[in-house]
Amino acid sequence: MKARVHVSLKPGVLDPQGKTVGDTLSRLGFSEVGEVRVGKIIELELEDGLEPSHAEARVKDMCEKLLANTVIEKYEIELA
Amino acid sequence: MKARVHVSLKPGVLDPQGKTVGDTLSRLGFSEVGEVRVGKIIELELEDGLEPSHAEARVKDMCEKLLANTVIEKYEIELA
Repeated sequence: MKARVHVSLKPGVLDPQGKTVGDTLSRLGFSEVGEVRVGKIIELELEDGLEPSHAEARVKDMCEKLLANTVIEKYEIELA
Repeated sequence: MKARVHVSLKPGVLDPQGKTVGDTLSRLGFSEVGEVRVGKIIELELEDGLEPSHAEARVKDMCEKLLANTVIEKYEIELA
């Protein structure tokens, strides 16, 4: 079983990395680009045979304890 | 229109960040976790009214020129 966690900055939190990417794209001639935000994707290989609801709760726990800084970041969990 | 680019290391390329996250999760008691890989998500706001096929070609160009290091990284583009 695999889990995919998408960690991104909460709306309203400044994203200097995204700003730099956006500015650089404009300078390269991609004038159609507006705001750019950069986030992380964490792909976890989980033990087989876990119950999906249990797995989701465990991954949520991982996010709260390590994977996301919940003061400024939000996360979405996808199981596959 | 929005584009979402998922940049991740090619299979076989070592991912020290993912390894560190995996080791730390084990140490925190999440013994069900196996391999961990960390990638990036870049969300781009694009001008409205672009044709999807044209937008996709432009974003592909951005990936090749700036967003991904295609020697070690692969990318997937999603338009929304």
